[in-house]
Amino acid sequence: MRFDEAYSGKVFIASRPNWEDAEAILYGMPMDWTVSYRPGSRFGPARIREVSIGLEEYSPYLDRELTDIRFFDAGDIPLPFGNPQRSLDMIEEFVDSILEKGKFPLGMGGEHLVSWPVIKAMHKKYPDLAIIHMDAHTDLRVDYEGEPLSHSTPIRKAAELIGPENVFSFGIRSGMKEEFEWAKENGMHISKFEVLEPLKQILPKLAGRPVYVTIDIDVLDPAHAPGTGTVDAGGITSKELLTSIHEIARSDVKVAGADLVEVAPVYDHSEQTANTASKLIREMLLGWVK
Amino acid sequence: MRFDEAYSGKVFIASRPNWEDAEAILYGMPMDWTVSYRPGSRFGPARIREVSIGLEEYSPYLDRELTDIRFFDAGDIPLPFGNPQRSLDMIEEFVDSILEKGKFPLGMGGEHLVSWPVIKAMHKKYPDLAIIHMDAHTDLRVDYEGEPLSHSTPIRKAAELIGPENVFSFGIRSGMKEEFEWAKENGMHISKFEVLEPLKQILPKLAGRPVYVTIDIDVLDPAHAPGTGTVDAGGITSKELLTSIHEIARSDVKVAGADLVEVAPVYDHSEQTANTASKLIREMLLGWVK
Amino acid sequence: MRFDEAYSGKVFIASRPNWEDAEAILYGMPMDWTVSYRPGSRFGPARIREVSIGLEEYSPYLDRELTDIRFFDAGDIPLPFGNPQRSLDMIEEFVDSILEKGKFPLGMGGEHLVSWPVIKAMHKKYPDLAIIHMDAHTDLRVDYEGEPLSHSTPIRKAAELIGPENVFSFGIRSGMKEEFEWAKENGMHISKFEVLEPLKQILPKLAGRPVYVTIDIDVLDPAHAPGTGTVDAGGITSKELLTSIHEIARSDVKVAGADLVEVAPVYDHSEQTANTASKLIREMLLGWVK
Amino acid sequence: MRFDEAYSGKVFIASRPNWEDAEAILYGMPMDWTVSYRPGSRFGPARIREVSIGLEEYSPYLDRELTDIRFFDAGDIPLPFGNPQRSLDMIEEFVDSILEKGKFPLGMGGEHLVSWPVIKAMHKKYPDLAIIHMDAHTDLRVDYEGEPLSHSTPIRKAAELIGPENVFSFGIRSGMKEEFEWAKENGMHISKFEVLEPLKQILPKLAGRPVYVTIDIDVLDPAHAPGTGTVDAGGITSKELLTSIHEIARSDVKVAGADLVEVAPVYDHSEQTANTASKLIREMLLGWVK
Amino acid sequence: MRFDEAYSGKVFIASRPNWEDAEAILYGMPMDWTVSYRPGSRFGPARIREVSIGLEEYSPYLDRELTDIRFFDAGDIPLPFGNPQRSLDMIEEFVDSILEKGKFPLGMGGEHLVSWPVIKAMHKKYPDLAIIHMDAHTDLRVDYEGEPLSHSTPIRKAAELIGPENVFSFGIRSGMKEEFEWAKENGMHISKFEVLEPLKQILPKLAGRPVYVTIDIDVLDPAHAPGTGTVDAGGITSKELLTSIHEIARSDVKVAGADLVEVAPVYDHSEQTANTASKLIREMLLGWVK
Amino acid sequence: MRFDEAYSGKVFIASRPNWEDAEAILYGMPMDWTVSYRPGSRFGPARIREVSIGLEEYSPYLDRELTDIRFFDAGDIPLPFGNPQRSLDMIEEFVDSILEKGKFPLGMGGEHLVSWPVIKAMHKKYPDLAIIHMDAHTDLRVDYEGEPLSHSTPIRKAAELIGPENVFSFGIRSGMKEEFEWAKENGMHISKFEVLEPLKQILPKLAGRPVYVTIDIDVLDPAHAPGTGTVDAGGITSKELLTSIHEIARSDVKVAGADLVEVAPVYDHSEQTANTASKLIREMLLGWVK
Repeated sequence: MRFDEAYSGKVFIASRPNWEDAEAILYGMPMDWTVSYRPGSRFGPARIREVSIGLEEYSPYLDRELTDIRFFDAGDIPLPFGNPQRSLDMIEEFVDSILEKGKFPLGMGGEHLVSWPVIKAMHKKYPDLAIIHMDAHTDLRVDYEGEPLSHSTPIRKAAELIGPENVFSFGIRSGMKEEFEWAKENGMHISKFEVLEPLKQILPKLAGRPVYVTIDIDVLDPAHAPGTGTVDAGGITSKELLTSIHEIARSDVKVAGADLVEVAPVYDHSEQTANTASKLIREMLLGWVK
Repeated sequence: MRFDEAYSGKVFIASRPNWEDAEAILYGMPMDWTVSYRPGSRFGPARIREVSIGLEEYSPYLDRELTDIRFFDAGDIPLPFGNPQRSLDMIEEFVDSILEKGKFPLGMGGEHLVSWPVIKAMHKKYPDLAIIHMDAHTDLRVDYEGEPLSHSTPIRKAAELIGPENVFSFGIRSGMKEEFEWAKENGMHISKFEVLEPLKQILPKLAGRPVYVTIDIDVLDPAHAPGTGTVDAGGITSKELLTSIHEIARSDVKVAGADLVEVAPVYDHSEQTANTASKLIREMLLGWVK
Repeated sequence: MRFDEAYSGKVFIASRPNWEDAEAILYGMPMDWTVSYRPGSRFGPARIREVSIGLEEYSPYLDRELTDIRFFDAGDIPLPFGNPQRSLDMIEEFVDSILEKGKFPLGMGGEHLVSWPVIKAMHKKYPDLAIIHMDAHTDLRVDYEGEPLSHSTPIRKAAELIGPENVFSFGIRSGMKEEFEWAKENGMHISKFEVLEPLKQILPKLAGRPVYVTIDIDVLDPAHAPGTGTVDAGGITSKELLTSIHEIARSDVKVAGADLVEVAPVYDHSEQTANTASKLIREMLLGWVK
Repeated sequence: MRFDEAYSGKVFIASRPNWEDAEAILYGMPMDWTVSYRPGSRFGPARIREVSIGLEEYSPYLDRELTDIRFFDAGDIPLPFGNPQRSLDMIEEFVDSILEKGKFPLGMGGEHLVSWPVIKAMHKKYPDLAIIHMDAHTDLRVDYEGEPLSHSTPIRKAAELIGPENVFSFGIRSGMKEEFEWAKENGMHISKFEVLEPLKQILPKLAGRPVYVTIDIDVLDPAHAPGTGTVDAGGITSKELLTSIHEIARSDVKVAGADLVEVAPVYDHSEQTANTASKLIREMLLGWVK
Repeated sequence: MRFDEAYSGKVFIASRPNWEDAEAILYGMPMDWTVSYRPGSRFGPARIREVSIGLEEYSPYLDRELTDIRFFDAGDIPLPFGNPQRSLDMIEEFVDSILEKGKFPLGMGGEHLVSWPVIKAMHKKYPDLAIIHMDAHTDLRVDYEGEPLSHSTPIRKAAELIGPENVFSFGIRSGMKEEFEWAKENGMHISKFEVLEPLKQILPKLAGRPVYVTIDIDVLDPAHAPGTGTVDAGGITSKELLTSIHEIARSDVKVAGADLVEVAPVYDHSEQTANTASKLIREMLLGWVK
Repeated sequence: MRFDEAYSGKVFIASRPNWEDAEAILYGMPMDWTVSYRPGSRFGPARIREVSIGLEEYSPYLDRELTDIRFFDAGDIPLPFGNPQRSLDMIEEFVDSILEKGKFPLGMGGEHLVSWPVIKAMHKKYPDLAIIHMDAHTDLRVDYEGEPLSHSTPIRKAAELIGPENVFSFGIRSGMKEEFEWAKENGMHISKFEVLEPLKQILPKLAGRPVYVTIDIDVLDPAHAPGTGTVDAGGITSKELLTSIHEIARSDVKVAGADLVEVAPVYDHSEQTANTASKLIREMLLGWVK
C-alpha cells in the first residue's frame, strides 16, 4: 500500500467517505462543562468511534448490515470549553444544516444538555415532534443552583417547548420530588424504573408521528455502564435497552433523529461502556434510518 | 460566603449538624484486619460518604426525602489497626451508647466481623431479636484456620447468642459443606441463591418482632458490586436488593438497627460499588427509620 | 513449618500433587497471537489459578466438594510466541497424551483458536463427538483477512471436521451475515442471544453421546465479564451460565472434555472475570467429571 | 468511646477544631469548569485531605511538627458548577474574610484560575505583593478561544494587576510563542525548565517583601504527578520541589499566602499525586507559617 | 458551523490537510503480534494522536512552532493481525513510497520489529546509513525461541544489513550475555545505561552522514513510561531523552528518518506515556525536519 | 510436549527444581495485617514471581547470569490471616531451617514487620550481625497506638536486640520526632533522604562483618514504586537503588541474608513496581550470593 492511498483519520466503522450521498449524519458533541458531579463525557464520542473497530457490521437482531444504509461520520463539533451558551448555539446551527439537507441526525454526547439545542432544531422542522427519553434521571429542573444551563434541565426545556404531553420518559429512578410532581401536574409521561414494557404500550399512540429519541447511557444499570458521570443503581440491562431500540424500529413510529449521551471514558476502565455505546449506535442506525 | 461560616468536614448528605435531635445515627466501622482474601474495606465508609454528594435526597421508590427523617452521621469509630479484640470492644461500647439514647444505629463496614459486637449490643436491648442476613457467604465458621475472630465467623457467633432459629440468611451461594449442615441441623434458615422471593415468605413470620438487618454488599453479583473483598459470581442484581429493602420497609417487621458491610474502594475502579452503597444507605434510612 | 516441607508453586486449589491418580487434567493454553482486536488472554490461565485461592472447595449448587473428585493441574503449555501453527501442534500433542491415559481434559485459554487442536484430538478418540459451544461470536469464518489460523475460525474448522450437524452453538449475538447463512445452509444449530432455554431442548437429543463443551467467557454480558478481548453487550448473566453448566451435569450427555477461553486479565480491573472463571472451572470439574 | 464524643467529618490531619486560635486557614476551591483538556481537579482538595491520614505530623526536613503551628481546615468553598464568574467572586470574598482576620490563607485547587481572585484579595491587603509561580505552563494567555475566564489566563491577569516585573515564574516548559514574548517584552521573569537554581538567585531580591506562592502540581514531571489535567514531560522531581519549598522557608522572603492547584484524583490511580500533594501542604504549612 | 464544513477524523495536531506540500510524513505501524511478554502496542499510534490535542504547537526548547514545518499525518497502515511477514512487507512498501517522493518518514509503533522494514527501505536510498538506537534492550537476538521474526531481533537484522560498525545503541540495560558479546566482537557500539553523555561523544563522528534514529519508549525509566510492554527499572528520565533529541537536532548529523515505538496504552492508566510520546514526536518533528 | 512432562507451578525464573543443591532460598512472607494505612502487600511475593518471566537472566551490571548461581524458590510461607504473633513464629522457624542447612535466605514481603523474626533468626546464627536498612520510614516506634506488633516497629525491635550501634538506616524521610531522637541518643546511624553517598562511607566500616540487608520498596520515590502501602514523595530513583545494591556487592561486606518488602500489587496499575522488584531480586541474588 502506498502512503498517499492510506486511510487517514478515525471515524465510526463503515462511514461513507463523503456526506453527500449519506442518509444519516453521525456527529459528536464533546461538552461536559455544566455537570454537577463527575465530568469527562467530552471524550465520549471519540472513544465510541475508536472502539467501533471491534464491532461486526452485521446485526443478527435486525438482519441488516451497516453497508445497507448510508451514513457519514462528520466528526466532533469543536465546542468552546466552559462556554455553555456558545456551545449550544453551535450545536443548533450544526443540526439545522443537517436537517436542511434532509438527513437524519444521530448525535453522540457529551452531557445531556446537548440534546436541548438539537430538540430546538428538530422542533423547527417537525412542529408535531414527540420525544422518547430513556434516562435514570428526570432532567426536569428549572435550574441547578440558580443556573438554567445545566445538565439537569434539558428535558424541562424541551417539555416547555413542545408541550409536556409530547414527552415520554422511561427508566427514571432519580430526581427531586418537585420534578416528579411537575411532570404529573403537567401531563408528561414518566415510567419509573422500567423501559421495555411501558414503551410497548406507548408506541402505538405515537404511530406515524415524528419522534426524537434521546438516550442517556445511565438508563443502564452501573453494571452495564460504569463509564458515565452519575451512576445510579437499579437500572436496566443492555439486553433490555437493545430490545427497546428494536421495539421502536419495528413500530409505526417515524424516528426523525436521535442521540446517545453521557459516555465518560475516564470511568470506563475496560472500555466496556464505550463498546456497548458503539453497538447501540450501530443498532440505532440499522433500526431507525429507513 | 465568609470562611468562618463555611461548611467543614465530610458527612453523608443531609446529615443533621447535631446528634441530639436525630432519630438515627450513621457510623463507620473501618476495620479489615481479619479478612482471608483481599483487604481494603477499612476505606469503605469514607468513600460511601464522599460519593453521597452524587445522590438526590428524594427516593422515587418510597416517595420520601432525607429531610423527612432526622439522622446524624457520627463519622468513623477510630479502631486500632490489627487488633481485632479491642476493635470489637470499641464497636460494642459505641453502639451501646447509641441504644442508650434510644436511637437507631446504622453502621457501615468494614469487614463483616464488625456486625458481631453490634448484634451483641442489640441483643442486650432486644432479647427477642431476630436477624435478617443477606450475603454471598454463610459466615458460619467456628474459626478460620484456628482463629475465632475472623470475617468468616460473625453469623455463627450471632446464631449461638440469639439462637439459630432466629437467624434468617438469604442469597447464600458460598460456604463449607459443614456450615450448611450445621445450619440445617440447628434450625437456622438459609435461602440459597435467592433473596426476594424467600424473604417475602419469611417476613410475615417476623411481624412485630425487633429485627437487625445485616447486608454484605457481596450478596450482589460481582457485576453490581466489583468493589468488595471476595467477589462471587451468580449473585443478585442491585434492583433485586433495592426491592428487598423496600419489601422489609413495607412489612410489619420492626427494624431496630442495620448495617451494610464489605465495600472496598480499592477494587472499585469507577466508584460504582460506593455509589450503589450510598443509594442503599439512603433507602435503608428512608425505609427503616420510622 | 520447615522450608523444605513448604508448598512451592501455584496451582488451582485442591489440585492433586501427582497426575497419576487423577481422573481429570486441568491445563492452560496461553496463546493470543491471532486476535484481531484486544490481545491479553495469554495471561488468563495463570490469573484464574491465582484467584482460585478465594474459592470454597464446596459447591452448594451440586453439593459436592473438589476433594470428592481427583484432578491434577498440569500448568501451562509453553507455547511459542507469535507462531500459531507450532502452538496448535503442541496443544494437539498435549491433549493426545491426556486422552491416551484415559483422563478428562479441561483446558483454559487463551484465545478461542486453541479449541481447534483440542477438538481434533477429541475427534480422533471419539468419532461420534458432538460440540456444545457457548459464545457471543459465531467463530465460523473461513479466514480472517486471508489468514485461516485466526481466533474467528475455530468453530468453522470444527464443524467441517465433525460435521456441521454435530455442532450446537448458544448465546450467539455477533458475526458476519455469511456466517449465519453458512450455518443455516449446512444444518448447524445456532441459538441466537439465549443459552439456557434452547440448551434444555437440545440436551435430550444428545443423550449418551460424547460431547465436548467449549465456553468463550464473552458469552457472558460485559457486565459479568469485562476482562476479555471482545466485549459485546446483550449477553447472559453469570447466574444463567452457572445454571447451564448444572443443566448439562444433570443431563444424560456424556461430557468427554471441555474448555473455558478468552479471559484477559489486563482488562479485568477488579479481577472480577478471573474470579468468575475460577468458579466456573470448579463447577465444570464438579459437574462433569464423573 | 461514646458516639457523641466521636470525631466527625474529614479534615487535614492536625487541623485545630476551631478557626479562632489558628494562624493559618486551609481551604479548598473545587472548581474545574474552564479547563480545555482533562477536567477532574474539583475533587482534588477532598482527596488530599483524605490521604493526609497517611502522613506523619513531623517534618524531618524542617524539624518541626504540625502541632507546633496552629491551622484550621475550613473545608471546601461550595462553588457553583459551570459558573466561572460567580465562583471567582465567592473565592475572593472568602479570602477577603481570612485576611481581615489577619490569618494566612493556604488554598487547594481546583484549576489554576482559582488563584486569580485570591491574588486580587492579597493585592488589596499587600500593595507591594510579589508572586512566585511554579508551573509547567505559562498561563499568560489573554483568553482561550475567546474566553477570558480560562485556566490558561490567571498569571496574565495577575501580572497586569500587580505589574509583570513583580511576577516570577519557574519550571515553565509549555506555552504559546506569544506568551513567552509578552513576558520578555514586559519584564516578567520566566525560568524555563528549572526551578531550584534560578529560585536561589531570585529570592535575595525579594527579601522582606510579601510574596504569594502559587504552585501548579504539574510543575512536577508526570512521573511524579500523573494525577493532573495536563501532564507534560520533562518536569522536575518531587525532591526538587520539596527543596524549593524549604529554600523559600529559609530565605528572607515573607510568604503571605499560597496555594497548590490542579490535583485531579481520577487520573491518579495509586493516589500517588494526592499523597505527594498532602506532603507538600504539610511542608508549606511548616515552612511558611511563622 | 455547518456540518459539511466540520473537521472529520483524528490526526496529530497541526497536520497539513494534504500530503503533497508536506516535507514529512507521520504514520502509524499498529503491530504487536510477535511480542514475548505483554502485548498492546498496536493501539499506541492512535492514542498518541488522540492526546496530542493537549500539546502546545510551540516548543520553548527549540523556539519553533509546528506550523513552521509542513508535515502530514497519513494515519495507520492497516496491518494484517497475526501475520508478521506480510505486515513487514506492507511497511517496507509504504516507506518506499514516502522516500520516493523525497519526504521524511516519521513512524510510530507498534512493537520494535516494525523498524526493521523501515531500515531496509532507508538503506536502499541511503547506502551509507547509520543508526542511532535508544532502548532498554539490545534487540540483538538471532531469533526468539526459534522464531526469526520477533520483537527481540530488529537491531540484529539491521546491523547485519548495514554493518554492525554503523549501529550505535544507547541506554541499554537488558539483554542476553550473547547479545552483548556479539556486539563487542563485531564492532557495534553499545552505551550501557546512559544516553546523553555518550551520545555527545558519538555525534561528531557521524557529522554529515544520513542517520536513522529509532527510539524505543522503554529507554525511559518505568516511572516515565509505564505504558509499554516490557518495563525495566533503572532507565533515563524524560528530561534526559528530550535533551538527547535536542542534542541531535543541534549536531551536524543529517537525520533522514526516525521512529518512536512500543507505546502500549492499556498499561498507561493516566495516559502519561502517550502524552510524553506526543511531546517527543513534536520535538522530533521540530528538531529533525529541516 | 506430553502433559506429564509439562512444567507445573509458578516460581521465580531460573529457580532450581530442588532445594538440596541450592546455595540460596527465595521465599515469600505474605502478611499485611498490622499495616496502619493501605493493606495489600500480602500479594506482593506472588506477583513478583509472576512478572519475573519478563526479565532476562543476565545482568549487564554485574556480568553474571542467574544460572551461574544456584537458588531455589520455596514459595510462600502459609501465614495465618490476622494473627501477627503466630505468623512471626512461623517465619522465624522457617528461616531457622534455612540457616541450619547453611543456605542464604532471601525473603520477599509482605509488610515490614516480617523482617523482625528473620533478624532474630539471623542474630542467633551471627551474634555480630549488622543491619543495613533502606526505607522511607524510621520504623523505630515502640508500639503503634499501643500495639507492639506493628509494621512501624521492626527496626526498633532489631536495634534493641543487636544494639542500635549495629543498625544503619538510609534514605529515611518520614517518622515521628521521637524516633529520630531515640536513634540519635542511642548511637544508631540514620542517613536522611540519601542512600548511595552515605552508604559508600559506611560500607568500609562494616568490612568482613556479616550483614543483613532489609529494603523497603518505599525507599524509592512514588514515581518509581507506586505499588506500595505508604508512598512518600522525595525518594530515590530505581537507578540509585540498583547502584546501591551493586556497591554492596563490590564491597568487603559479607551479606548473610536479605529481604525486599512492602510491594502491594493492588496499587500497582501497570505492574511497574512488581517488575522493578523482580529486577532488584535478580540483582540481589547475583550480587550477594557468592
